[in-house]
Amino acid sequence: MSKVLVFGHKNPDTDTITSAIVYAYLKQQLGVDAEAVRLGEVNNETLYALEKFGFDSPRLISNVAGEASEVILVDHNERQQSADGIEEVKVTEVIDHHRIANFETSDPLYYRAEPVGCTATIINKIFKENNVEVPSNIAGLMLSAIVSDTLLFKSPTCTEQDVQAGKELAEIAGVNVDEYGLAMLKAGADLSDKSLEDLLSLDGKEFTFGEAKAVIAQVNAVDVNDVLNRKDELVSLLNKNIEENDLSLFFFVVTDILNNNSTAVVVGKVAEAAAKSFGKELVNDLVDLPGVVSRKKQIVPVLTEGL
Amino acid sequence: MSKVLVFGHKNPDTDTITSAIVYAYLKQQLGVDAEAVRLGEVNNETLYALEKFGFDSPRLISNVAGEASEVILVDHNERQQSADGIEEVKVTEVIDHHRIANFETSDPLYYRAEPVGCTATIINKIFKENNVEVPSNIAGLMLSAIVSDTLLFKSPTCTEQDVQAGKELAEIAGVNVDEYGLAMLKAGADLSDKSLEDLLSLDGKEFTFGEAKAVIAQVNAVDVNDVLNRKDELVSLLNKNIEENDLSLFFFVVTDILNNNSTAVVVGKVAEAAAKSFGKELVNDLVDLPGVVSRKKQIVPVLTEGL
Repeated sequence: MSKVLVFGHKNPDTDTITSAIVYAYLKQQLGVDAEAVRLGEVNNETLYALEKFGFDSPRLISNVAGEASEVILVDHNERQQSADGIEEVKVTEVIDHHRIANFETSDPLYYRAEPVGCTATIINKIFKENNVEVPSNIAGLMLSAIVSDTLLFKSPTCTEQDVQAGKELAEIAGVNVDEYGLAMLKAGADLSDKSLEDLLSLDGKEFTFGEAKAVIAQVNAVDVNDVLNRKDELVSLLNKNIEENDLSLFFFVVTDILNNNSTAVVVGKVAEAAAKSFGKELVNDLVDLPGVVSRKKQIVPVLTEGL
Repeated sequence: MSKVLVFGHKNPDTDTITSAIVYAYLKQQLGVDAEAVRLGEVNNETLYALEKFGFDSPRLISNVAGEASEVILVDHNERQQSADGIEEVKVTEVIDHHRIANFETSDPLYYRAEPVGCTATIINKIFKENNVEVPSNIAGLMLSAIVSDTLLFKSPTCTEQDVQAGKELAEIAGVNVDEYGLAMLKAGADLSDKSLEDLLSLDGKEFTFGEAKAVIAQVNAVDVNDVLNRKDELVSLLNKNIEENDLSLFFFVVTDILNNNSTAVVVGKVAEAAAKSFGKELVNDLVDLPGVVSRKKQIVPVLTEGL
């Protein structure tokens, strides 16, 4: 049997990287020759989690064609968020917690999506369904993913299932959730030494809303002014990106992880319409989004509706 | 909470009808106000199963918009196989065992597809995962679905999981699998008194292969000559259907359930190419398909590749 690659989305976050590692581990226990790989740079939050639990970053790949004939997607399904060359390989499984779009197969597959806060919460169930024990360091990775995706259980995407899985996994991993969780989030949210180019490459996801091709990026910050003080320079960069990639919208969200609010820097020809989707006016390219912390639950559906 | 409708594909078969009934029952046990409905006439095989285990046919609906705001799809996902008006309601769950195509949501959902022979095999797992007991008559319906979709465990789509689920459910239902299964299949496969119009409406599913819009229909027969003796008349009917629905292909499969072979009546402007996909020549609008019994596993992938 040839190797199966397991990977999450481009611009990887903690759930994407750790779910690839954890699910590859589970498949290995079930006799599959699985390897976790990644499609981009690992961010500081994820590095903190990997180091804490003794893992290296997965191997970086750029194009999946030629690397393997079968792949498993975690934490995403949309073609434009996946590996280059994805149309040339067979997707045999998807484990995800996002909407389904721009995804098509010619054969039946195992597709497991649940409307929970984190891919790791679903993978934790699949361990149980297959009677595979969760080792302590693997539990630590899954806990890190849940803390990251739910902002320490505070995001509206967080479900009771995520909370329960988090508790259970913290016990197996032997860590205090609140202490470890805040330390991990802060490791990723110190933006003071980040260049704007770094921030841009961190977390952009591409979406299509009607006719509009859009990128929504989100960064977590302990101090949002680390970004907003450089707004004019950021707007120039976003405009450049829009031109290069023929976008109608760049929606750049800075989330205050201590107070659970966001501010978005919004540019592109449908920027005004995007702001209006939230019932807001665009002021100096900015939209205040009080209480908004979830791209998936509080931003994508609003823009899908509004554009 | 408003009512959630549960339904399978158009031109319903036994798995689609019984999975809707069974999954609605499971959701009811979990506190959801769910109702099974159907999108077309119930065939003789399904009627036999419903009667045997004491169920009525679900309510027939034509357009889902206005009937409910939330729906659960079983045994299908492709838009063109689903209810009219499907784009106006929210799909909250899908339980299926087919490829994924022409399916898109704006929100995360519960999507459970597994590459097994029958939707009921997956639903049987979901009962266990939720610790809900399977009553005897519900087990009978699930067994009927498995027997139907796997042609009594003989189809190449049949997996070890389907065999195990079938055994387990037969015991709960208190029936002899082979005796009951063959009787049920025969009830659906006696085509001697069927008009060709009846046959056409039985089981057509629409697919898109590249540019080609196609319908693949399949009927099970105890005696394939019940259909093939009326071939010329059937070809006229298929051509009429092609014209009315702007199709490039009508691929009408007659499957001999006792010997596990099929013959296809193939018409439309890509008929020759369709036959070539199987390495065959079209002879008098007919293609012999020895050993072929599964549309999903032995026909759709071949046409996807070939057209």
